[in-house]
Parts: sequence; C-alpha cells; structure tokens
Amino acid sequence: MNETRILARFISDSRWSDIPQTIRHEAKRALLNGLGCAIGGCQDQTVDRALAALTPFSGPRNATLVGLREKRDILNAALVNGLSSNILDFDDTHMKSIIHPTVPIAAAAWAMAEHRAVSGAELLHAFVLGVEAACRVGNSVSPEHYAAGWHITATCGVFGAAAAAGKLLGLNERTMASAMGIAATQASGLTAMMGSMCKSYNMGHAASSGLTAALLAKGNFTSSDQALEAPRGFCHVLAHEPRLEELTARLGETWELAWNAYKPYPCGIVLHAVIDGCLELREKYALTSERVQRIDIRMHPLALELAGKAAPTTGLEGKLSVYHAAAIALIRGKAGVPEFSDKCVREAGVLALRGKVRATSDETLHEAAAIVRIELQDGRCIECDVPHATGSLERPMSDADLEAKFLQLAGDRYPAAQASEIVRLAWSLETLNDASTLIRATVPELETKENKNALR
Amino acid sequence: MNETRILARFISDSRWSDIPQTIRHEAKRALLNGLGCAIGGCQDQTVDRALAALTPFSGPRNATLVGLREKRDILNAALVNGLSSNILDFDDTHMKSIIHPTVPIAAAAWAMAEHRAVSGAELLHAFVLGVEAACRVGNSVSPEHYAAGWHITATCGVFGAAAAAGKLLGLNERTMASAMGIAATQASGLTAMMGSMCKSYNMGHAASSGLTAALLAKGNFTSSDQALEAPRGFCHVLAHEPRLEELTARLGETWELAWNAYKPYPCGIVLHAVIDGCLELREKYALTSERVQRIDIRMHPLALELAGKAAPTTGLEGKLSVYHAAAIALIRGKAGVPEFSDKCVREAGVLALRGKVRATSDETLHEAAAIVRIELQDGRCIECDVPHATGSLERPMSDADLEAKFLQLAGDRYPAAQASEIVRLAWSLETLNDASTLIRATVPELETKENKNALR
Repeated sequence: MNETRILARFISDSRWSDIPQTIRHEAKRALLNGLGCAIGGCQDQTVDRALAALTPFSGPRNATLVGLREKRDILNAALVNGLSSNILDFDDTHMKSIIHPTVPIAAAAWAMAEHRAVSGAELLHAFVLGVEAACRVGNSVSPEHYAAGWHITATCGVFGAAAAAGKLLGLNERTMASAMGIAATQASGLTAMMGSMCKSYNMGHAASSGLTAALLAKGNFTSSDQALEAPRGFCHVLAHEPRLEELTARLGETWELAWNAYKPYPCGIVLHAVIDGCLELREKYALTSERVQRIDIRMHPLALELAGKAAPTTGLEGKLSVYHAAAIALIRGKAGVPEFSDKCVREAGVLALRGKVRATSDETLHEAAAIVRIELQDGRCIECDVPHATGSLERPMSDADLEAKFLQLAGDRYPAAQASEIVRLAWSLETLNDASTLIRATVPELETKENKNALR
Repeated sequence: MNETRILARFISDSRWSDIPQTIRHEAKRALLNGLGCAIGGCQDQTVDRALAALTPFSGPRNATLVGLREKRDILNAALVNGLSSNILDFDDTHMKSIIHPTVPIAAAAWAMAEHRAVSGAELLHAFVLGVEAACRVGNSVSPEHYAAGWHITATCGVFGAAAAAGKLLGLNERTMASAMGIAATQASGLTAMMGSMCKSYNMGHAASSGLTAALLAKGNFTSSDQALEAPRGFCHVLAHEPRLEELTARLGETWELAWNAYKPYPCGIVLHAVIDGCLELREKYALTSERVQRIDIRMHPLALELAGKAAPTTGLEGKLSVYHAAAIALIRGKAGVPEFSDKCVREAGVLALRGKVRATSDETLHEAAAIVRIELQDGRCIECDVPHATGSLERPMSDADLEAKFLQLAGDRYPAAQASEIVRLAWSLETLNDASTLIRATVPELETKENKNALR
C-alpha cells in the first residue's frame, strides 16, 4: 500500500462539488470559531514576544494578523495566527483524535489566501481537506501518540496545513505527496511544553512549517513519497502500532469535520459538564452563593486527575480546577474568558465558595460527564446530572451559540457593526470572490488610547 | 536532577579561556571542512529550488549564503547554508552519536555572526558549545534514537544551533534553558527522507529552528525548563531508555569535539576503508584495471548491508555501493566528488570493473574496517588489510589533508588566491575582530559566463 500517495491523490483530485453541504457548513462554523479565538488571544504577550523577536527578519508584509493592525510575510502570519488562536484554549476539538484542527490549518490557509487570489469556496474546500489529512493522520497514531508526549495538534496539524496550502497552490498528486513528506519531516511538538508559551508556539510552528512544505513542494523540492507509511516514516516512528488503514479507509465517504466540537467555556473540556450543571441549578433555583452550604461533584477518575487543581493561583491553573469552575459558574452565572483570569481566580468570594466544593471520582460516569449535587443552607439538596456537556457531539453548540461566543470574544475589540459584519462574512464565505475579505475584516479600526487601555 | 538547567548554565557561564587549545583547533578544522562542503554543495538544485520557493518571503538580506553571491535574511541563510553543507555527504561525524555536528550548528552561528558584531574567538567558542550540546543530547538517546528512524543530526542538531546562537546572543541560564526548550519542541527529521532533497532539508531546518529558538528565548518567550528530562520531554519521548547522565557527566572536563572525524571521500563512511585499500594496492603495484581479474572485499555485515548497492545508477546510489567505490578507486586513483557523479557511475570502464568485485561479510572485522584482496590476470594475489580508514579517530586527517580537501572542493570556484585566503582566514579565525570576514570571503567574484558554465 502507498497511503501517502492515495491521500495525496484524494486531496489533489477533490472537487468542491464533492463536499457535502453539512461539511461545508461545519467548515464555516469552525472558521468563525477560530477567528473568534484568534481575536481573543491576539493581544496576549505570547504574541507580543514572538512578534518582537521575529519581526526584524520578516519579509514582505502582505498577510493579515487576525485582530491586529500589523501585517507580516505569509510564513510569519501563519505562525502568529496559529499562536493567537490557541492561547485561550477555546478552540475546536476533533473528538476522535483530540486534535484542535482549525488552529494550524486555518492559519496556513488564511496566509495562502493573501498570497494568491483564492475564492471563499476554494478556501473552505482547502480547509475541509486539510482537516481530513490532519485528523486521519491523527487517527492512525491515536491514542498512543498523544499519550507518549506528542502534542498531536502540532505533529498532525502540520499535515493539514500542508494539505490546505497545497490545495490552494494547485499541487498535483506527486507534489502533494512531496508536501506531505516535507510536512512529515518537520512534524514536532512536545506536551512537556504545556503551561509555557511553547504550547501555543507548537501550533504556530505547525502552521508555518506546513505552509513551507507546500511552497517547497510547489517548487519541485523532493521528499520521500512514502512519508507516512515507510518503515522509518511518520507513523512508525511516532507510534509503535499505527493503524495505517485509518489514513485511507472510506476516503470521500466520511468526513473528519463531522467529528468537530466547539467549547462553550475556555477551560479543560472535562469541566464543561460541571459548569453546565452548576449553571442549570443556579438558574432553576435562582441560587446565590450565600444559600450554598456544600457542593458535591462526581466525575470520572481521569477527568478528576486532569482537572483536580484544588488551589489554583493563576487563570491558567483555574482552567484545570473543578473547584474553581464550579465556584465561578455559581457566583457569576457564566464561564467566559474573564472567569479564567488571574484576577478572578484570586477573588475572595470565589475562594470562599471554592472551599465548599468536594469532588469525588466515579468510574460509572463517562469521562466528559458530571453529576452536581448542592446542599443548601436550609438543608435541602438539589442535583443535576449532565451526561453530555454543551458543545459535545451529542449536544452541539448551535450556530447561534457560536455567534454568541464569537461576539463575546470580539465584542470589546470592535464596534458592534464591525463584529456583526465579520459574522455575516463568515456565514457567506462560500459566495465571496476573495476569501481574504473575511480575514481583513478582523483588522480593528485605528485604536484610540482609551479602547487600547480597556483591552490590555 | 534538572539536566536542562545544568546544561544551560554550563553554556551561559562558559568562558573562552575554559576551552582547551586542542578543542579550539578542532573547531577551526571543523569550520574549514564545513565551509568546503558548503561551497561544494551550494550550486546543487536542492539549493536552487529552496531559494526559488522561499525567497519571495525573505526578510532583510543581511546574511551571506556560503559560496553564492546572493544574501538572505539570517533565518533563510541558516536554512540554505545548512542545506548546502550536507548535500555532498562530505561533512564531519561525531563518532559517538554519528551526528554531523558542523552542518546545523555552523549554519546558525554564521548567520548570527552577521546579525550582531561577533569576534572570531566568540564564534569559535559558541560553536564548541553548540557541538557540546547537540552531541550530549545525541549521546543520551543513542543508539536507539537513530535506529528508530530519527535523523539524529537534525533532531539533536537543533539544540546545538540554539546553543551556539544563544551563546552569541548572550543568553543567561534561564533564557538558555528556554532556548533549549524551544529547540526541543521543534526537533524533527525522519530518516525515511534519505535519498530525497529532504535529507539535506532536515539539516537546514534544524539550523533555522535552532536560531529561531535562540531569538525567541532572548525575547523572553517561555518554554518548559525541563525540556530534555521531563517525562514528556525530548529524551523520553524520542527514546525509550535515554541515559540522562550523558547530558551532564563531566561537563567542562571532556569535549565532544574531540570525537569529531572528517571524511576523505564523499560517500558512506563504511566504504572509506575499502577505498583506502584499493588506493594503496593501486599505488604499490602500479595497477591498471586491465591487470585485475577479480576483487574480493571483506566487510562487517552491517557495513555491507548499508553499502551493498550492486548496480547503482546514480551518483547518490554510488555513495552506498562497495562495488562502485572499489572500481573508481582502482581506475581513477582517487575518490572525490566527480567519482560519485551520475556520469561516473554510468561509465563503461567503471561498470566493467564493478562486475569483477565480490563483497562478503565478515563478523570478525570492525564496522569501519575492510580487507581488499585482488587477483591479478597473471594469477598473483595481492591484499591490503585496513583496520582503520583515513579520517577515522585512529588515523585522523591532518590539517594539510583538510586544506587539500577544501581546495579540491573550492578550487573550481575561486581564483587560487581567494581559495588560499579563505584557508588562511580559517586558521586565524580566533584572531579576527569580525568573524563574518571569513564567511564573506566565500562569496565568489562576479561570475563570467565561462566560469559559470564550467561550474554548473
């Protein structure tokens, strides 16, 4: 078998008319969500520091940085947009592989859309194929690959970035296989980086490396054309027992984007059911924190291990604390970006309620489920069982939910009319003659001192 | 233990006066050899295609491409110089890890020397430390890492590039540890790429990624500071049983550059003893190919497996053919770059003599040894036993040998005076106020149509 060539041929031969309507729509949902995440993350110091360090070496500044007024060369733009969209941990998730596909793939595709004339439909098409490539590679090495310490969104995302950029460059079967190979030999990213700026860097690096792979392949730079399946190729070197059949089985019949889910809350996915339960009880019983005596939460042992941070001191730690998540949902009635800030994690009221939370593990629950039980001051007990959290494949975020999430992330950054215009362009992307109209619409108006201070 | 921090501290604290005279001299030998290799490789289409694909995105063109008249931004220059110096397979080898250290490390250091004022001694110092970092990382994961399919010069070279560039940027212990971390999370390169342009790309990518790591770290971009030893860090993820003690044992007492060897012939190192033996017999007995009836070669089984290509059709395949190597040594009395060209591999006389070579495996021999036995037309048998090839640690190339090799590689490219000047500058590098004087000296005079045709 020659999986690399088969996958390359599928991507290069694919026509827009082959893509089902539901998948086209899912691509728009993913891109809108991704733009919101990038807008929310683009002012982080991770981005500031990368820009400061690398700008002196940037080439022609043709490509938009989402949410910023500056431009960079397309390779640096792919890097920075990849960084930005991952910073808040608010991105989408391919539920089979736990890849966050939009981050690296969209970053490469957007950059390419500013390098050559690309229609909205072409961009969507390339994005769908990029997700297909990255997630199939991810499926073939999962779950052992991530468990071993590979940051799977980066190691597999580079294939998606190369495929999407390569499709927009018009690569044929042979050159697309080279692009896959050049991507494979750049695949990198360690989970040891979690908690540092390199976590997001992994994403940006995957985006720019994949874009580089496509550009080199277009110029007939050669690679192994068995980069995935060769004995010393990606799958065998980065996993012990890869399932190569995942790379090509039912290509064109199933679509990996169908497995894409979106986070309603910018924190560990295992906490989403806990937040849902707390919000539901708060609303149903018009709870205030004074009325709460004790909060008991049951979760799967693995979920508790991942998110059992008892005394978080930073927003980042709060994203992995079931105690913090329950407290803020009950106090504030929401769980957005401000609820996972350093400031909020240290608030006296939050700390007090956090102290009333008890979490216990329950092997009978699904990893993403939770049961929230609250004992009130008056002795009554109320309970909420959440088998599937909002944003799961079983209970997906609606288009309206995604719009609301976007506006929440973008609201501070733009006048209402501009934010709405971005949403409108995203939903009509397949009708745009020039895809880059959408990414350019994320450039904010000239910042006044006031709104800059408000944002920083 | 915190190996990353210990190694980072060693590099950032190191003073030039700590470096023994023999190691300083070895660094000059390595750099002279590396410049020759880059000059010999810089006109290959691998370089042409990379330049054509990536030049549209290059930033300010401040950095020299060895042997070429064009410049690029420092990141692209590191990439291209890394490519160039590996193309001929003529580079140096750290005999413990089989890393070719100079390729990625010098490429990053030279680029940095054109970014900020750096003396010759500072460049040599940074290079020595870069080799120390890369080779110690390599030692810690060898031999299983390469055997598993990792292109060790790239995966470990990125640490050396980051260390050398970081030393020239004046990183302290903390930021040097970040540079190591940013390097670790970019470490990549698969041996499946051997035989394609990506083999050399791996080297260039390691150089530019390491340089990027140093620049980001200088700008306080954060990383895990346990990137090497963490459970999900480089050593445990890219090897099953790393020996972390290799990272720090006897730091500052031993020097990895002492294990560096140089190739006298641009082909697989396991063929060097074969060539030595053939050349010796040819000279001693004034052999001509007509007098040869049959050639019997005994090699270690692994060597024969690596270099057993019976009917090579390209120069690249010739580099891994004991049959070709023996034939050209006996016919031409030398084994330089022209002897491993596509043309030479297809020559009728070479093919005829190749047909008289028999190679057998002999487990009692060292992997780098060979016994050559020739039966002459007159029935006589002559034999040469080569336990250690020229260029091995036991029989190192002398300074004069390295000069001759450089002039062989550079001779066509420069007037004699310019080639000699490069050699002179290399040997006096530690006295130069501006290290970049040396790399700039490799820029050829304006090419006339005649000499361009002669070279292409």
